[in-house]
Amino acid sequence: MRLEISALTTLPEVRRGDDLAQLIREAASQEREPIDGSVILAVAQKIVSKAEGAVVDLRTIRPSALAESWASAWDKDPRLIELILSQSKRIVKMDRGVLIAETRHGFVCANAGVDQSNLQANMQANTLANTEDDEFATILPENPDLSAQRLCAALRCGAVIITDTFGRPWREGLVDIAVGVAGLEAVQDCRGSVDRSGRKLAGTILAVADQLAAAAGLLMVKSGGFPVMCIRGYEWRAATTGSARALIRNPQDDLFR
Amino acid sequence: MRLEISALTTLPEVRRGDDLAQLIREAASQEREPIDGSVILAVAQKIVSKAEGAVVDLRTIRPSALAESWASAWDKDPRLIELILSQSKRIVKMDRGVLIAETRHGFVCANAGVDQSNLQANMQANTLANTEDDEFATILPENPDLSAQRLCAALRCGAVIITDTFGRPWREGLVDIAVGVAGLEAVQDCRGSVDRSGRKLAGTILAVADQLAAAAGLLMVKSGGFPVMCIRGYEWRAATTGSARALIRNPQDDLFR
Repeated sequence: MRLEISALTTLPEVRRGDDLAQLIREAASQEREPIDGSVILAVAQKIVSKAEGAVVDLRTIRPSALAESWASAWDKDPRLIELILSQSKRIVKMDRGVLIAETRHGFVCANAGVDQSNLQANMQANTLANTEDDEFATILPENPDLSAQRLCAALRCGAVIITDTFGRPWREGLVDIAVGVAGLEAVQDCRGSVDRSGRKLAGTILAVADQLAAAAGLLMVKSGGFPVMCIRGYEWRAATTGSARALIRNPQDDLFR
Repeated sequence: MRLEISALTTLPEVRRGDDLAQLIREAASQEREPIDGSVILAVAQKIVSKAEGAVVDLRTIRPSALAESWASAWDKDPRLIELILSQSKRIVKMDRGVLIAETRHGFVCANAGVDQSNLQANMQANTLANTEDDEFATILPENPDLSAQRLCAALRCGAVIITDTFGRPWREGLVDIAVGVAGLEAVQDCRGSVDRSGRKLAGTILAVADQLAAAAGLLMVKSGGFPVMCIRGYEWRAATTGSARALIRNPQDDLFR
């Protein structure tokens, strides 16, 4: 029982309009990393957003009074705050300079998934001068599950997980989680199943796609420039579609909404 | 750049007083899984607690009025509730049958880390009859960092992470996290560091030990009976001791305390 994660290291800088599946296919082929139905691909949200053009020029944004006031209180860019508000369907917490929001997809995270380009300049091979780079931010893909499905279909791999890096209450540091899923059950209910020894798996409901994202994130975030990971050796529960929405807690069951 | 996780599959049922390092050494040797300074071992809390005798006979517990009242409202075992209260230094949330507490170590989790044996009967090779098994519960190790240090020293591996399975606000499903750490920096501050291409890693503070725990948990929880994983190929930042306490958010910075 062995799981293996390997980075694609030759993927070029991704730009708006790029065929991301094609770029991944070429990199995999060059690196002799066969991609087939046994492989789960983990892909950083950042490059999916870039390929899909989910990048916003802050110079086009007119900040609201709320954005101006919060930005001025906490020394932030008011246009960035306005963009964050525009990506939110609900503000969960706005305190001590931290803005935690529920995105239109239902994800609860800092800054509604908005990332200023220069915060991850490492993922841009040919970064613009910093001054100009400050003028752009990525937002989450419109429909990350659909983005995952398209990649999965185009690459004929087993499953695709689109990952993003989120903070957490109570615990320090960021971890990678799944914002888009195709080809696998994002959450697996192991209650009542039986392991190979015939013993009953008392288990529990496992956030499998988040654990896969975290595993991939170990190499992804650390290495900076490697936003695509191949995961092999993990036996997953296939799903005809699959969705990261299964990872979002039902509001009625959420004690920390 | 390749990370590999493999399960030790021949570890016997762990019992109170067992020399866990010795059991792991024997299993690794039998399976030809060399354990050396390049290996990070992930070990499930459950077997550490068992070896250390952090197992409580519920028949010795006299429930308080609070435990009786909560148990009766939510159809729980009042002795188990009392044990959970005794393991808590603060109740974070007690609502809709869910009890989230801060343990004396500072971890915030459901049931203060108390696990009823029969909830994970899969980890017991020779389970007692269910009726008697219901009478026991494990608690977290007294000092999980120290438990990790001892295993690390005895096995001469690179690092040890003791993992437990926690739920999360906002997201469905459980993930594995680190409750004890030895030999690595549990949290890594990547700000200002530079990746191999010489680009600045804008990064962030990463919960590396939690990501390693999640990666190991993919095989651990799913397989049920395999509570020890060997992680190879991950370049970590060594620490003379290391501590899972670094993963606990400072109360002043915690918006969801």
